[in-house]
Amino acid sequence: MSSLPANIGDAFHDIDTPALVVDLDAFEKNLKTMADFVRKKGLRLRPHAKTHRCADIALKQIQLGAVGQCCQKVGEAEALIKAGVRNIIITNQIVSEAKLVRLAHLARQADIALCFDDRKQVDMASRIAAAQGVELGALVEVDVGMKRCGVAPGVPACELAAYIEAAPALRFRGLQAYQGAAQHLRTYEARKAAVEHAAQQVQSTVDLLSENGISCEIVAGAGTGTYPFESAAGPWNELQAGSYIFMDAEYGAIEGADGGPYSDFNHSLFVLASVMSVAAVPGRAILDAGLKSFSVEKGMPKVHGLRDATVIGASDEHAVLVMDTAHGARNLALGDKVMLIPGHCDPTVSLHECIVGVRNGRVESTWRIDRDGSSR
Amino acid sequence: MSSLPANIGDAFHDIDTPALVVDLDAFEKNLKTMADFVRKKGLRLRPHAKTHRCADIALKQIQLGAVGQCCQKVGEAEALIKAGVRNIIITNQIVSEAKLVRLAHLARQADIALCFDDRKQVDMASRIAAAQGVELGALVEVDVGMKRCGVAPGVPACELAAYIEAAPALRFRGLQAYQGAAQHLRTYEARKAAVEHAAQQVQSTVDLLSENGISCEIVAGAGTGTYPFESAAGPWNELQAGSYIFMDAEYGAIEGADGGPYSDFNHSLFVLASVMSVAAVPGRAILDAGLKSFSVEKGMPKVHGLRDATVIGASDEHAVLVMDTAHGARNLALGDKVMLIPGHCDPTVSLHECIVGVRNGRVESTWRIDRDGSSR
Repeated sequence: MSSLPANIGDAFHDIDTPALVVDLDAFEKNLKTMADFVRKKGLRLRPHAKTHRCADIALKQIQLGAVGQCCQKVGEAEALIKAGVRNIIITNQIVSEAKLVRLAHLARQADIALCFDDRKQVDMASRIAAAQGVELGALVEVDVGMKRCGVAPGVPACELAAYIEAAPALRFRGLQAYQGAAQHLRTYEARKAAVEHAAQQVQSTVDLLSENGISCEIVAGAGTGTYPFESAAGPWNELQAGSYIFMDAEYGAIEGADGGPYSDFNHSLFVLASVMSVAAVPGRAILDAGLKSFSVEKGMPKVHGLRDATVIGASDEHAVLVMDTAHGARNLALGDKVMLIPGHCDPTVSLHECIVGVRNGRVESTWRIDRDGSSR
Repeated sequence: MSSLPANIGDAFHDIDTPALVVDLDAFEKNLKTMADFVRKKGLRLRPHAKTHRCADIALKQIQLGAVGQCCQKVGEAEALIKAGVRNIIITNQIVSEAKLVRLAHLARQADIALCFDDRKQVDMASRIAAAQGVELGALVEVDVGMKRCGVAPGVPACELAAYIEAAPALRFRGLQAYQGAAQHLRTYEARKAAVEHAAQQVQSTVDLLSENGISCEIVAGAGTGTYPFESAAGPWNELQAGSYIFMDAEYGAIEGADGGPYSDFNHSLFVLASVMSVAAVPGRAILDAGLKSFSVEKGMPKVHGLRDATVIGASDEHAVLVMDTAHGARNLALGDKVMLIPGHCDPTVSLHECIVGVRNGRVESTWRIDRDGSSR
């Protein structure tokens, strides 16, 4: 008994469902598009591993030039470092002594930095790093509009940077300035304006630090929805996009530069499901994938490649698909396979233990997703 | 490095976060309340394992009198049978040959039944069970208002039952009649009316089967929101409630028999989180648990035991908690622990690999959740 939905070499139609499937051609094209972009711009790319939690993907990104990985949690970093990644930023604050001890252990094997927005975090990390005999990299997180974590730009950020500079066993390396609230603004102009506003705040903070003799080796931020704007000008030198490798329905719904649908990257990630029932209501097909196979907090998944077929609901292990046969949808039969584009890629991926890579109708890879303990 | 958030004997305040925590006193009381109820009513209880995916819990339920477990997927059944469960109904249709072969293997070790709502499913299951030399139990699923799976009550259900009776290697055992759409209707009367309507349909189907010489050993259904109504009178003899062991914010929001909040069972399940940042907006605390630790499709989690504190948003690994200090909420500090009641228990549980059982401020148990492959 294997818990994997497929083995390498299997035909596509033999993949057990539900399964998380990646179209390898589209995925590799996305990897290359972003790698080429940052190379041309002279920037660094540090993709966010929260999107994939998959060492195979992290190593591919690094092979194409990424300087390392971003993680949200120490558990994610542990899994990646075990697999050979050597340069990680934890894009989060850590307030647990036990977690900081684990992070200090990782700092013996890899270049590690984390984020701060409070002196108490600095005191705790400095004390533990010193006790463990390691040095941890430190970024000041600046709130540039997301209202989640981060100190205000300008003086508060500079004061915290100076405090870090004075703390033993921490090395100030720069700013974490991610405008998460801008990523899914529908229009191109709205996203551009939000990042340009953030850019002024970040630049003035960098300038103020410089006036105080503190230099920023790293100014990090950007996501799949805004990376062209952070790259265009201004203070950022390191991009942290993650979703570009997969895309999802939420990113598929924003506008691109030409006012048409955003198309910098292609949908490569799908939840493969089977029709398990067509008995209850004519024109409906019930799929064998539900809330335990895709996240719906950004909306129901979209149906890939089927005209006028819409997912109207989901429960734990079912999705309800409605086929508008009057407008050309074909009726689905028991056992038919359907490819769903999830609303939001990151929380969908971590529902699965494996990513099945497919090309030319065959299973070419089965990559493990490291999820046990990865949120801690 | 352990991926578990705690070890047995740890103090409550040393549990690493985020963690899925069960209050063992409340949990055991819930188990006993339902076990006593069905015993008094002379009914059978077959709790749904989709709620917990945890063999430790399944075995406790059986020890208290449950006749076995319901599963939604073959993968869930495999994990439970490996742990010693010997009587399982798959409350779903199976349309995959590979899955049916796996189910046939399980039928050599346990009493297995599954649901049907189409002759093609019957043909496939009958053929595979016969080829494997086993007999599978068969329930006809009847749609009693959920509009998801199931044939219509009455003649269609009887015709499918007769078709199953004639099929080799399948044994007709009864009806699956779950009114899932009634579980969360807010008022007690609305839930009662929905189940009474379903009861007529199920009873007339049972009667029609009887007239045709087909007896129903099992008439199964009911959930945590409606079990008193299925038990009150009518055709059901086996209850399939699952959420009663944990409760959640969604069940906490419905009315009980007295018009007050539903209180048949107590909240025993919590996501334990830590305050990781308080820097960006006064009166807000950012928690280290998000969409990868609790499901939000039924709403944000509720904050347990803190007055005027509300979760207003969640991203992958963050929740935003607002404290209305003007109305008595206390300001939370970095590192403070918060207990969240998830909106929906089932998809929250399967985000975790472990349930930490706590009593009197100590960790008493760490139960493994079997999630790898469990949706297949």
